[in-house]
Amino acid sequence: MNALRKAGFAVGELPPGPGCAISDVPGVQVGHCTLREGDGPRTVRTGVTCVLPPGDPYAEPLPASVFVLHGYGKATGLWQVAHMGALETPILLTNTLGAFRCADAVVSWTLDRHRHARSVNPVVLECNDGFLSMIESRPVTESHGLQALSAATAGVVEGCVGAGTGMVAYELKSGVGTASCSVDSWTVGAVALPNMGRREDFRFLGTRPDLSAVPRVRREEGGSVVVVLATDAPLSSRQLDFLARRGALGLARTGAPADTGSGDFLVAFSTGYRLPRGEARSRAEVLGDENEVLRGLLRGAAQAAEEAVLSALLAAETTTGRDGRTAYALPWAAVG
Amino acid sequence: MNALRKAGFAVGELPPGPGCAISDVPGVQVGHCTLREGDGPRTVRTGVTCVLPPGDPYAEPLPASVFVLHGYGKATGLWQVAHMGALETPILLTNTLGAFRCADAVVSWTLDRHRHARSVNPVVLECNDGFLSMIESRPVTESHGLQALSAATAGVVEGCVGAGTGMVAYELKSGVGTASCSVDSWTVGAVALPNMGRREDFRFLGTRPDLSAVPRVRREEGGSVVVVLATDAPLSSRQLDFLARRGALGLARTGAPADTGSGDFLVAFSTGYRLPRGEARSRAEVLGDENEVLRGLLRGAAQAAEEAVLSALLAAETTTGRDGRTAYALPWAAVG
Amino acid sequence: MNALRKAGFAVGELPPGPGCAISDVPGVQVGHCTLREGDGPRTVRTGVTCVLPPGDPYAEPLPASVFVLHGYGKATGLWQVAHMGALETPILLTNTLGAFRCADAVVSWTLDRHRHARSVNPVVLECNDGFLSMIESRPVTESHGLQALSAATAGVVEGCVGAGTGMVAYELKSGVGTASCSVDSWTVGAVALPNMGRREDFRFLGTRPDLSAVPRVRREEGGSVVVVLATDAPLSSRQLDFLARRGALGLARTGAPADTGSGDFLVAFSTGYRLPRGEARSRAEVLGDENEVLRGLLRGAAQAAEEAVLSALLAAETTTGRDGRTAYALPWAAVG
Amino acid sequence: MNALRKAGFAVGELPPGPGCAISDVPGVQVGHCTLREGDGPRTVRTGVTCVLPPGDPYAEPLPASVFVLHGYGKATGLWQVAHMGALETPILLTNTLGAFRCADAVVSWTLDRHRHARSVNPVVLECNDGFLSMIESRPVTESHGLQALSAATAGVVEGCVGAGTGMVAYELKSGVGTASCSVDSWTVGAVALPNMGRREDFRFLGTRPDLSAVPRVRREEGGSVVVVLATDAPLSSRQLDFLARRGALGLARTGAPADTGSGDFLVAFSTGYRLPRGEARSRAEVLGDENEVLRGLLRGAAQAAEEAVLSALLAAETTTGRDGRTAYALPWAAVG
Repeated sequence: MNALRKAGFAVGELPPGPGCAISDVPGVQVGHCTLREGDGPRTVRTGVTCVLPPGDPYAEPLPASVFVLHGYGKATGLWQVAHMGALETPILLTNTLGAFRCADAVVSWTLDRHRHARSVNPVVLECNDGFLSMIESRPVTESHGLQALSAATAGVVEGCVGAGTGMVAYELKSGVGTASCSVDSWTVGAVALPNMGRREDFRFLGTRPDLSAVPRVRREEGGSVVVVLATDAPLSSRQLDFLARRGALGLARTGAPADTGSGDFLVAFSTGYRLPRGEARSRAEVLGDENEVLRGLLRGAAQAAEEAVLSALLAAETTTGRDGRTAYALPWAAVG
Repeated sequence: MNALRKAGFAVGELPPGPGCAISDVPGVQVGHCTLREGDGPRTVRTGVTCVLPPGDPYAEPLPASVFVLHGYGKATGLWQVAHMGALETPILLTNTLGAFRCADAVVSWTLDRHRHARSVNPVVLECNDGFLSMIESRPVTESHGLQALSAATAGVVEGCVGAGTGMVAYELKSGVGTASCSVDSWTVGAVALPNMGRREDFRFLGTRPDLSAVPRVRREEGGSVVVVLATDAPLSSRQLDFLARRGALGLARTGAPADTGSGDFLVAFSTGYRLPRGEARSRAEVLGDENEVLRGLLRGAAQAAEEAVLSALLAAETTTGRDGRTAYALPWAAVG
Repeated sequence: MNALRKAGFAVGELPPGPGCAISDVPGVQVGHCTLREGDGPRTVRTGVTCVLPPGDPYAEPLPASVFVLHGYGKATGLWQVAHMGALETPILLTNTLGAFRCADAVVSWTLDRHRHARSVNPVVLECNDGFLSMIESRPVTESHGLQALSAATAGVVEGCVGAGTGMVAYELKSGVGTASCSVDSWTVGAVALPNMGRREDFRFLGTRPDLSAVPRVRREEGGSVVVVLATDAPLSSRQLDFLARRGALGLARTGAPADTGSGDFLVAFSTGYRLPRGEARSRAEVLGDENEVLRGLLRGAAQAAEEAVLSALLAAETTTGRDGRTAYALPWAAVG
Repeated sequence: MNALRKAGFAVGELPPGPGCAISDVPGVQVGHCTLREGDGPRTVRTGVTCVLPPGDPYAEPLPASVFVLHGYGKATGLWQVAHMGALETPILLTNTLGAFRCADAVVSWTLDRHRHARSVNPVVLECNDGFLSMIESRPVTESHGLQALSAATAGVVEGCVGAGTGMVAYELKSGVGTASCSVDSWTVGAVALPNMGRREDFRFLGTRPDLSAVPRVRREEGGSVVVVLATDAPLSSRQLDFLARRGALGLARTGAPADTGSGDFLVAFSTGYRLPRGEARSRAEVLGDENEVLRGLLRGAAQAAEEAVLSALLAAETTTGRDGRTAYALPWAAVG
């Protein structure tokens, strides 16, 4: 159960899956590698989070798509996913300057499994944790990416772990959050890494909680938010583009401003069928565009993204980082 | 003052302009031509609304851009606006099947003023009012488009007028709405034509009002919502793309689902400078991307779009249309 | 046989279909309505051309996509085709200011066949024939659009007919052209309406013919070129996006400059399967992305687009239009 | 002088700059780091090439844009360039699996110069040299990226150097090529890394040379081609999008097929003005869209891209790589 449901809240009308997590989509796993080191100016509060699709994504890519609400970001792999409609690797989330070493980790992970592979398209998303963490020392290495991949499990941990370790959103301590919705016999799940917004932007289930007792945190770095959406429903890559766009509606409902220095990137994939490499014919039976179930899944994507953001905030803990700066957790009492 | 402010509500933290309307952007005018005819199966409840920029948009186009959240729609003129970053005509809003006659009206309007013009790019947005109006009889003609243009005034009328006459949103009677925000010395204004969503999607200032006493309206046609944003701030067409995208955040906050049969089109233009036709050099001084005022304007675009949608609902009146179908207005008491 | 093959030329390595025309894609038809009226300043040299897919495109839309190389143009219907990946109407080609009346003609045509339709997405492409024709008098009406649709036949006529009547390309008289390629058991066909470029841009099968004896035509209007591609191969809408992009490669090989006032719009559709309206599930078996046949079809799209442009020029006849201006046909001797 | 001009050929009508190279754009430099090691299955034939803009791109980003003809590729940094219209780093070119280490090199290079930077958007383009080089051993490291940057000079070396070391195009040995055009008082320059196409696709100045004496090379890897365009003309990022698109026209004229496994990425930047970080106002005076000089620059971009591809082929030398495979150079006699 995610932090939001544990705290007794619910977003929207759709029921959550049994675990209130992206792993309610069968076979999807999440892993973290957390870095908490040092103090003073050299404090490191960062890490890597992976979203691992089931099966062998390189041999049998998954239908996928991408939506970029505001494109100030360093994500890798997205042009190919957007253009070809296929995901061929796990997805890593990390800090801005660690993105390329994580991409290299995904290449290594794939070559370990397919040693004759000569082209790999790693998908890495990132947010900037430079307020709490000495990002410019580039603490994340390829090894940390591989550790996150090794740690993948169906038991998704939220909060200040992995890529969430150093995140700050709405001037509150943030982290990693997850959520899911059931729609008919299908599930749509989300992992969010919220790192955006100012205090006055924040909306908790549509309301503006009284946070006057919580010290504010005004950072210089641009914020961002990235979301991974997964579903077991058989959707075309075009419909996954729709799904990714609906994730942005969920972000908006938490108050996400999509600031000019923000990278608001959303990736969506389906485990409902595969696009095996090199096949002469590609067969798919997907939901019709006017199918009521598809409409529900799109609403579910918005709901899961909103819930994953709020759950990330509720799961986070007050954290002191670089130069003694402290980002305070959202007090459950303030939103109760 | 728009219906929302009249009812005593406020959206967001930014102050509205003096008229709470898009006409707070100096020189921007709005006009309506309303068609209410017949009864029974031949009932017509439709019309045309225009947004008229100041000056001569054909001789001196305005910087502009477009964002399409979901592209099931028949809007005209948008590829050229998106590609060239310039708006050279007024913008008309109407019903789905009337879009092309309104485009022709904009061509006529422009040729009247520039008789040697050989290329005109009319911008027309549309939503489907077929639930209340006999849309397939195509009651809107070029003449109605010209009447809306002639009626343009700084005193913006909201509700069941012009293109808003037959609109239905969240299973409530909708119409045309407007709003504005002041940011520093600039204004961002919006006109919205909400025609989307189901009852359970609706959020009024973040909450779900109790509408159990209001009969539901389940239509077959896809819904849509279109928004025009205007600002006097000097923004590049790229920044106006940002602005249009932020309008979609405002839609999301009212619960807009962006359904698979929905055309969610947003157009943004600036009156802050001009792009005179045929100039050898184009000069502009725009806000820097990291300027705090730009950040405010982007938040203002989301706020104005949200407010314009809610105001359209508050301004609307219960309307009976085609085949005796009735769409009920949002009771102010339900949201008070 | 198209004019290019009649003249003894061949483009590329792929064999043409039996008719060297888009109608080699089974069921695809082309029709023209030609307007040649008046003289002096009121001369009209314009018309409408339709590309009619087989079957009932409204009941059973065809997979489709769009590529816009340069977006200075007034085409209608393209956002929805691009977003939804489906074509639900015939495609009309006409002059710039006639686009909206032709869109209305397509709406009428569809409502005639589906009288309860409340949403129709007409696809109309256009180029500007204002050099030879009094475009600003708007001679094309809805009726001409319907006439072109009624005239559709598998026997495609090229040259100065329909929308090609007033076209000028590379400072030569242009018109409508068509071509096709066979790839494995499939066909890809093209219709082109070239209206772009200067004399020095022109390349005929890669060479620059000596046209010093042909008077030059320097117009003020921006040029454009539009292309319709059809195939019977079962391609996804994403692959049809690829196909449309390859059409632009063919344009480039004729020297198309994609000038800043040019609308270079390409639409591609497949007759290989259908997307019936309202189905709960959409089933498709399409070619794999790495299938050698798909690679051939993409090359075929480039070849057919190049050939259709050159054939339009070879089929055109010297034409005198507005204000006594004459555009001269490409002398076959110059390229022989 | 580039290899094409040395060989006595010319592309198009526009005159080249004095060096026939991208460095004719004042201040633009190119550097290479070449890796030629080993033999048999472990042969390495690869490297890194940099395009270094003048000045300090991080403190004062350059207006820039991107066009992706076919998006099967691993380029980094392009979403931000496309969305924000600004380039803040040098551009590196390398092999597919080396892209992320080169991105890390650009981050290091930038942090060396701006040690408080917390966000860097490195632009890296890549093609796959796995036919001649053991790409899966990932021979390129961050250090090689830095070496290419250190080696930057106005004297551009073409052929089998840097990223061009292992490239193969049209089943001929390829490499790095460069070219430039003068338009009015401005220059547009190109660097191309051609790695695409089959023998039968190839067009040399529009013709198909007789290459029957040159052994064919049929690889399994998808090919690609990447192009960097630079100009000193003051263009908006929107106009640089136009410029990048015209580069694709040049590729098409050499026969580039944009295969389904191809990453055809083009980046364009202007040195004509700067977008200094953090400014409250951004001022620019750019060419008007209807300016004849802009039209010339767009044609120049197509010409320079075509010429850079052909020059890369003419500058390349027959190379034996992995597993004794040999790619043969284009014999000058075959095209003479």
